[in-house]
Amino acid sequence: MHKSRLSGFIIDCKTQDLEAAAQFWGEALGWPAKQFDDSEEAEYRYLETSNDDLHVEVQRVSHESRVHLDIETDDVDAEVTRLERLGAKRISEVKDWCVMEAPTGQRFCIVPLSRDRSSGRFNSWG
Amino acid sequence: MHKSRLSGFIIDCKTQDLEAAAQFWGEALGWPAKQFDDSEEAEYRYLETSNDDLHVEVQRVSHESRVHLDIETDDVDAEVTRLERLGAKRISEVKDWCVMEAPTGQRFCIVPLSRDRSSGRFNSWG
Repeated sequence: MHKSRLSGFIIDCKTQDLEAAAQFWGEALGWPAKQFDDSEEAEYRYLETSNDDLHVEVQRVSHESRVHLDIETDDVDAEVTRLERLGAKRISEVKDWCVMEAPTGQRFCIVPLSRDRSSGRFNSWG
Repeated sequence: MHKSRLSGFIIDCKTQDLEAAAQFWGEALGWPAKQFDDSEEAEYRYLETSNDDLHVEVQRVSHESRVHLDIETDDVDAEVTRLERLGAKRISEVKDWCVMEAPTGQRFCIVPLSRDRSSGRFNSWG
């Protein structure tokens, strides 16, 4: 038995100017764009949504700009297997998450549960 | 003075089989996929999120598959003007909504306030 839920989405931006991209999306959506403390997160800014909202991040990427969904889970392997059975493909492993592709072509990520947002509604599987 | 907020996102699917696409995304995210009563919405299915969640829809499209954000507002013209000042471009008008493109290239839509979801947090502008 494991659990998962949509945790949020990442606004992937093919840009040299992450600050400008984060500022645009922050002002467009009405949430301040913030820098993470962790230097490993240098390619990301987060939008300061309220705790019970989805997390929203802006990422500097080299591929074409897009929006991708994140699913968070207490068992990445089990969730990836569940999604493969639904028809998704495993694309790559990055750090402790897995990039997948839907049957309809959209990329999305399976990520470990966020320690910041451990409450709330999950779906239980298996 | 007008108000706006992120209302949800649309999973645009380049597919002949809208039912299969909606079923995949419904099972992946853990919300049942449902048909609208209105025949004008034949190209859409909605995922039955709770009332205080974002709305999530699956749409059959002819362009490449993607995910796009919807911003809802009580004044589409004023919101489009606000976003143009932030650097977004107006792409097209469809029914009573406006398709825009962010400076980083993602398409998104400005839509009139949903009558179903008129409560909740808005940003006020102007």
